[in-house]
Amino acid sequence: MVGIIMGSDSDLPIMQEAIDILESFNIKIEVDIVSAHRTPEKLVDYSKNAHLRGIKAIIAGAGGAAHLPGMVASMSPLPIIGVPVKSRNSIDGWDSVLSILQMPGGVPVATVALDGAKNAGILAAQIIGASDKTVLDKIIAYKEELKVKVEKASERVRK
Amino acid sequence: MVGIIMGSDSDLPIMQEAIDILESFNIKIEVDIVSAHRTPEKLVDYSKNAHLRGIKAIIAGAGGAAHLPGMVASMSPLPIIGVPVKSRNSIDGWDSVLSILQMPGGVPVATVALDGAKNAGILAAQIIGASDKTVLDKIIAYKEELKVKVEKASERVRK
Amino acid sequence: MVGIIMGSDSDLPIMQEAIDILESFNIKIEVDIVSAHRTPEKLVDYSKNAHLRGIKAIIAGAGGAAHLPGMVASMSPLPIIGVPVKSRNSIDGWDSVLSILQMPGGVPVATVALDGAKNAGILAAQIIGASDKTVLDKIIAYKEELKVKVEKASERVRK
Amino acid sequence: MVGIIMGSDSDLPIMQEAIDILESFNIKIEVDIVSAHRTPEKLVDYSKNAHLRGIKAIIAGAGGAAHLPGMVASMSPLPIIGVPVKSRNSIDGWDSVLSILQMPGGVPVATVALDGAKNAGILAAQIIGASDKTVLDKIIAYKEELKVKVEKASERVRK
Amino acid sequence: MVGIIMGSDSDLPIMQEAIDILESFNIKIEVDIVSAHRTPEKLVDYSKNAHLRGIKAIIAGAGGAAHLPGMVASMSPLPIIGVPVKSRNSIDGWDSVLSILQMPGGVPVATVALDGAKNAGILAAQIIGASDKTVLDKIIAYKEELKVKVEKASERVRK
Amino acid sequence: MVGIIMGSDSDLPIMQEAIDILESFNIKIEVDIVSAHRTPEKLVDYSKNAHLRGIKAIIAGAGGAAHLPGMVASMSPLPIIGVPVKSRNSIDGWDSVLSILQMPGGVPVATVALDGAKNAGILAAQIIGASDKTVLDKIIAYKEELKVKVEKASERVRK
Amino acid sequence: MVGIIMGSDSDLPIMQEAIDILESFNIKIEVDIVSAHRTPEKLVDYSKNAHLRGIKAIIAGAGGAAHLPGMVASMSPLPIIGVPVKSRNSIDGWDSVLSILQMPGGVPVATVALDGAKNAGILAAQIIGASDKTVLDKIIAYKEELKVKVEKASERVRK
Amino acid sequence: MVGIIMGSDSDLPIMQEAIDILESFNIKIEVDIVSAHRTPEKLVDYSKNAHLRGIKAIIAGAGGAAHLPGMVASMSPLPIIGVPVKSRNSIDGWDSVLSILQMPGGVPVATVALDGAKNAGILAAQIIGASDKTVLDKIIAYKEELKVKVEKASERVRK
Repeated sequence: MVGIIMGSDSDLPIMQEAIDILESFNIKIEVDIVSAHRTPEKLVDYSKNAHLRGIKAIIAGAGGAAHLPGMVASMSPLPIIGVPVKSRNSIDGWDSVLSILQMPGGVPVATVALDGAKNAGILAAQIIGASDKTVLDKIIAYKEELKVKVEKASERVRK
Repeated sequence: MVGIIMGSDSDLPIMQEAIDILESFNIKIEVDIVSAHRTPEKLVDYSKNAHLRGIKAIIAGAGGAAHLPGMVASMSPLPIIGVPVKSRNSIDGWDSVLSILQMPGGVPVATVALDGAKNAGILAAQIIGASDKTVLDKIIAYKEELKVKVEKASERVRK
Repeated sequence: MVGIIMGSDSDLPIMQEAIDILESFNIKIEVDIVSAHRTPEKLVDYSKNAHLRGIKAIIAGAGGAAHLPGMVASMSPLPIIGVPVKSRNSIDGWDSVLSILQMPGGVPVATVALDGAKNAGILAAQIIGASDKTVLDKIIAYKEELKVKVEKASERVRK
Repeated sequence: MVGIIMGSDSDLPIMQEAIDILESFNIKIEVDIVSAHRTPEKLVDYSKNAHLRGIKAIIAGAGGAAHLPGMVASMSPLPIIGVPVKSRNSIDGWDSVLSILQMPGGVPVATVALDGAKNAGILAAQIIGASDKTVLDKIIAYKEELKVKVEKASERVRK
Repeated sequence: MVGIIMGSDSDLPIMQEAIDILESFNIKIEVDIVSAHRTPEKLVDYSKNAHLRGIKAIIAGAGGAAHLPGMVASMSPLPIIGVPVKSRNSIDGWDSVLSILQMPGGVPVATVALDGAKNAGILAAQIIGASDKTVLDKIIAYKEELKVKVEKASERVRK
Repeated sequence: MVGIIMGSDSDLPIMQEAIDILESFNIKIEVDIVSAHRTPEKLVDYSKNAHLRGIKAIIAGAGGAAHLPGMVASMSPLPIIGVPVKSRNSIDGWDSVLSILQMPGGVPVATVALDGAKNAGILAAQIIGASDKTVLDKIIAYKEELKVKVEKASERVRK
Repeated sequence: MVGIIMGSDSDLPIMQEAIDILESFNIKIEVDIVSAHRTPEKLVDYSKNAHLRGIKAIIAGAGGAAHLPGMVASMSPLPIIGVPVKSRNSIDGWDSVLSILQMPGGVPVATVALDGAKNAGILAAQIIGASDKTVLDKIIAYKEELKVKVEKASERVRK
Repeated sequence: MVGIIMGSDSDLPIMQEAIDILESFNIKIEVDIVSAHRTPEKLVDYSKNAHLRGIKAIIAGAGGAAHLPGMVASMSPLPIIGVPVKSRNSIDGWDSVLSILQMPGGVPVATVALDGAKNAGILAAQIIGASDKTVLDKIIAYKEELKVKVEKASERVRK
């Protein structure tokens, strides 16, 4: 199971892509709002217990001075995937990118591209696929689909 | 009393300037290491109780993806002053500046310049001085000293 | 009482959030236009006398090469809160952020996020709350409200 | 087993931290030089076959216009961890950070901080730990050690 | 003949300017979609064989972590012209600019301005013109036209 | 006469180049320390009276959140030349560049390159030269000297 | 007389503000299109002769890799004012700002803010005012008007 | 023949790499100092005549507000390769990168990485190789050498 959390429901339109791709892989997900800055107790609780509930990876999306992914990473032994969200008032997204990416030694966050929730979902699937042959095969098939789409576009363009 | 915390003892040489200026104002301080990412329980404990112990303002210094000031601000009702520290591996300091400054609505951090711990100390004194005439007078005197120093430099240069 | 000033009335839509939040805390405010570059005499007058009129903290908002917060800080012993405003022709807000944040040693400005006037208002309340139990309790209650809002959003999302 | 590759042996001093931390967790590693730009055939061969040889995650470090992590990700179904290396002639590290982080939809790279090879190693361990209780326990113990070190630093500073 | 490739058909509106200018010079072109990340085998095939099919220069456009131009350059002995495309979710174009421009020693990409496909076309023509007097003369004539247009604008403005 | 001021005597090594070039043109100069943040009264006095004392242009150098050039410009009708100085703790010079360059409409500062005090001196001479034939001729001669130096370097390189 | 030139007639809407403000000061202007890249011969001619025709200062606006102001400065002894224009395809204006501002020693360009043509006009007036009492008085009056406008806005806001 | 020019002899240590690589390919070169800002007449003369003297491509290196490559491109029909040099006082190299890369439509400069003179040399060879089988074969051989070096490094690392 993959946990998907975000700092605010305004992040949901972006984070929906992680939900959709994981559902397309038939991977169970659990979605919630956990705000590092507004519900710090829930943050502690969520982070300390996720791995005990069978969660294998956590996707955390947040914007601006985005502390959610890093704070979850400080308290959970699971791989944490951070999605920098370009929020209103963001300085072009640099704030969320840097405050998720530049974690200190000892506490990694697997950061994906700005607003890259879809890739966060795929990465979570790959983490599960590392020890689950069924999921690994789905990823291989997914990559094959990407290739086919490009080949079709190539055909259209060459005409 | 002013609380001064930092994410790592490698931040101490920078943060020492906050200690020195507050001591020169005869303001009581309490210095500690509190790491958002390595001691999250202590972070919670410190943040929730500082105002109950008589602390009036907290100065928090951290580098890289600097979450300490913002996380303390999420749990303490006190004014929190954030010092972006230019750590090793920092991307020119932008990471600590943006991850302290760009806090979401509802949870302010009073951010000072990169490595600006001295100004953090002065700001803490000004916060106390807002309701304490003795400290306010010290700040007025301090500003007077700054002026005198510049005037002396001016005399040297004009010669 | 909190002073709220801005460089131009075009900053008012942003700065209104500071006014609103302080009024919601029942803190007395005084709003004015003071331009560092167009009314320098008024700037001097305002800065030197604000603390004598009972003002406890000043919020100053400005855009572009934003000198208002720093210049008030140079002449007032009060804590000055700077709001970088993303003005027309701004280079993505970097100009106002850096010209407010990067103050030299001796003259701090408590900088908040780009267009972060609401947080400037909360910070001003926290400064007053540092020595005023009634205001401190209002801030504690405000943080509780933030938490409840997130919990409601969390409930909606989990359904 | 974890694969660790880098674009040039000049990246080895940085990447050594990934090697060291994984060895401290008793996780088997395989280290090699694979250059996206100088040995593209080896890149293809390595990327397509790593998962068939039992590798569970790949750490790829590169500097400048760093294409290695993304190109491996395009051909391998495994989770790929990218380490942006601040190479000679880099524009302050921004080039390697952005050319690893900003991958298009469908092809994620789990990016860590600039020169953050140690965190890449920990992340690889967490990926294995997601389905391996022994490794998960080692990570929990490692986090405990980090805490103890900070607590000792805290004691020294408070004295 | 000039090869024009791009990572996705969403790049076509930008890349069309390269097509148009080369057609206006009567230079034969071949347009295709080749995705470094989605069709890596086609990338290898295209890059290794282009010069054998009589192609003299390759224009490659891509956005985000843009690896296409550099990867073609790693496998083709031809001059490769890279067009950084400002894609959706790009961090203001910096990602594509830096991941195309900052190639390591030994593997150059001739980079043009952000979304500068027209200039990529002219540059390809100049490369052919370096050894083809007819094309060189067309470029000289084209520059003359540019001058005439500016002179007409100058006349309008002076009135 | 040209006024040369700077925010601190630590700026003198940079500003010396403006002094030297103006002396080489035999233009009278007046050098002083005027700190926008530490001696605001002197700033007002200097700015309001410079043109009454016969000064024709003012060169102002400052670092970090550099308010000196803009504040002088707000109070003096003279052309003000701003020199962004890369001070200690500067964020790579961006802070001083942007806080001098990005002045609001109505209050220009003629900004030169980072640490470009020599060019500030030449610009001041050009301003005087606009109405003083002797100085204009010196500038023409100076440009001739630059050319001769490059020609000599060219000769050395070609050998 | 002031010369106003720009690289393309697409810059005219921005540069119009320089025209308007100079006309409001009754200073004679001469407007033309001179493209560094498309009409290099005209550039040489214009730059070498402007001071011989009685022009006292030149305002040059350009976008992107903006070479016009610097190239005029290389050939004219007059003070050159550069206006960085945020053109289509610009990387947020940074390209024009840096390619105008960062001139090498010996060849200054008086740079104003991004799209700051109005300030370029005022600066040109100030340069003329440095030796022309009538123009100086107009600038003093203009500054007075700015003040009055702010005072009226202040009155409105205080109500 | 390839022309190699630079704005100042201080650029020679960087530009030497272009000289060396072209000499290793036995391609005739001609090296000179041509300053856009200090010897504009020579610039015009050089640019207009290079193709008449048998030069096939021009490499131009410059730092800061680097106008040399773009100005040569405005007057020569040849392919121009621009090398951004990180000069003293540069703002981290961004100034030279952007003022060379961001050329307007109609006037391309083939830009290589910051201080990337070696790649400029290789690119010039590739341009010649586009119509010269001997040079093309040398480039193919050169790429083979790069591969062998990486393979040797790979062997050392695997041991």
